[in-house]
Amino acid sequence: MAAAAAAAEVSNRSVILKRHVTGFPTEDDMELVTATVRLAVPPGSAAVMVKNLYLSCDPYMRSRMTNHKEPSYVPDYVPGEIIPTFGVSKVVESGHPDYKAGDLVWGMTACEEYTLITTPESLFKINHPELPLSYYLGVLGMPGLTAYAGFFDVSKPKKGDYVFISAALGAVGQLVGQLAKITGCYVVGSAGSDEKVNLLKTKFGFDDAFNYKKEQDLNAALKRCFPEGIDIYFDNVGGQILDAALLNMRLHGRVAMCGLISQYNLELHEGVCNLACVVTKRVRIEGFIVTEYFGTYRKFEEEMVGHLKEENITYVEDVAEGIENMPAALVGLFYGRNIGKQLVAVARD
Amino acid sequence: MAAAAAAAEVSNRSVILKRHVTGFPTEDDMELVTATVRLAVPPGSAAVMVKNLYLSCDPYMRSRMTNHKEPSYVPDYVPGEIIPTFGVSKVVESGHPDYKAGDLVWGMTACEEYTLITTPESLFKINHPELPLSYYLGVLGMPGLTAYAGFFDVSKPKKGDYVFISAALGAVGQLVGQLAKITGCYVVGSAGSDEKVNLLKTKFGFDDAFNYKKEQDLNAALKRCFPEGIDIYFDNVGGQILDAALLNMRLHGRVAMCGLISQYNLELHEGVCNLACVVTKRVRIEGFIVTEYFGTYRKFEEEMVGHLKEENITYVEDVAEGIENMPAALVGLFYGRNIGKQLVAVARD
Repeated sequence: MAAAAAAAEVSNRSVILKRHVTGFPTEDDMELVTATVRLAVPPGSAAVMVKNLYLSCDPYMRSRMTNHKEPSYVPDYVPGEIIPTFGVSKVVESGHPDYKAGDLVWGMTACEEYTLITTPESLFKINHPELPLSYYLGVLGMPGLTAYAGFFDVSKPKKGDYVFISAALGAVGQLVGQLAKITGCYVVGSAGSDEKVNLLKTKFGFDDAFNYKKEQDLNAALKRCFPEGIDIYFDNVGGQILDAALLNMRLHGRVAMCGLISQYNLELHEGVCNLACVVTKRVRIEGFIVTEYFGTYRKFEEEMVGHLKEENITYVEDVAEGIENMPAALVGLFYGRNIGKQLVAVARD
Repeated sequence: MAAAAAAAEVSNRSVILKRHVTGFPTEDDMELVTATVRLAVPPGSAAVMVKNLYLSCDPYMRSRMTNHKEPSYVPDYVPGEIIPTFGVSKVVESGHPDYKAGDLVWGMTACEEYTLITTPESLFKINHPELPLSYYLGVLGMPGLTAYAGFFDVSKPKKGDYVFISAALGAVGQLVGQLAKITGCYVVGSAGSDEKVNLLKTKFGFDDAFNYKKEQDLNAALKRCFPEGIDIYFDNVGGQILDAALLNMRLHGRVAMCGLISQYNLELHEGVCNLACVVTKRVRIEGFIVTEYFGTYRKFEEEMVGHLKEENITYVEDVAEGIENMPAALVGLFYGRNIGKQLVAVARD
């Protein structure tokens, strides 16, 4: 109580959503506001006050900007309120017995400099601060676990499988590709620029990659890259690339549906016409959400830390500096402006 | 050899495909021709000569009428040749040690009165001739095994699941619905006429059913029938009903894709726009083909015979009389003219 009473009041910049979004989001849909916050938890509360070091920009956030008529799988953001997002944070003050000032954590926080987290049970402590802390927004965080669970649990890979990954340089795609190579698969990725395609082939060890924006015929591109067909399509985009992939699936192929970034900004999603292939090729299409795998996080974390320390896995992130650049960084995701995992550095410690 | 030399030569009427089909098939795409056949197997051959008693009309046959640019999952029919189909047949003469004259079999034969089957290993002997023989084209044959495997193996039902079945009075649909009721599921079917809807509710024990042709909004119809959502959608039709079903799937719902009869006659298949639900509801869509389950046939046969004898399962078939009515019966499938399993009675013994 004494500590709370003496707590400093500091400036706290945040990003709020001004309005629900239809179509592509713009920076103007968000606003940077400045308030003050007392660096304290309410007396008797089990909340923790954290300083946000890194904040995450993830494609699923677009869905939360929409005003859904029926409840979506994650709650819609509320206009006028600060945008929630995953972050890497340092505990400033704790009312919870599991946390103390100075602890490093990652989990759901919000787009601001300081956040009072009222459900600290949802946070994960950072076990490996010797690695870059920002990794806990990507390779060691939600996207990393997404890649790991979606590839191993949903896609059920075998050595020698032909694996196709869309949005392959994204936070999830780059990791799926490398996990597939470690598993002994043949791996091809699609991305939206020649620079990204080059990185996939030179830095991430993909066997092949193509720039989907330069292909006249996605079916032909996939036939060129997979003359034997595709065993696993790890789908981050949906729409036309999914439709073309279906035409190229092998018998008993698997499509792990992770996201549909090509569709999030469309009011009506594009139709997928080649579902007959699901019957004729006996394909399994399965969606998944990483939150169902959070219980397996520690096992994943230790395995991925091992891969990073042994340099089996490379990881590229795209860091915007300063919370004031959060709106531009988030919008940029939907234009493919980021090279690798997009995040915002709010404070270094 | 002596028997072969003495074999009778008899008239053999058959149905040939005149041309590959685009759009809806018509009777004029087929032709009834009359030839003669000697009721004998070639000397030294392991073939069997059969008399076809019942011939099957199945939706997948439409796909074989198309001239596919790339090989399909089943070979295209060849214009000018007799149309292959499943049949119930009696062995007239056998060159194969496993068969003798008088044996009753079911399996792949052709649209004619007598057929020389050169791969008799693919035939199944009929173990229960005390039941109507035509059942071996339906409830005890390929469609029955399709329903059984697609429901139990692909859909993974649990007691209390909400189950939706399209083309619910078809050969497969009527059985899936009854297997689901036996499993303790809540079962709703769609069909294309009020008469069929009435049969589903009164004769087959469906909890509810609707006439999709009378619904302005398929999504609303499914919401009315499934206020809690759908756990299992057994999809026989694809297209718009699949799209509406996706909107109504429950968390971890399963879509067993059995066929797409709404799409077979379209040159470009309709687009399915609601695949985002696969991610948000963590849905599994899985295609299957009954031939992969033929190894489990005997187990299925005994179980289904038990259900029939105990009158747990009702079965309705639509029998056209005479091979000359095969073209009309087959075309009728695609207009939903049949009530229950469509077949043609060629001979009674």
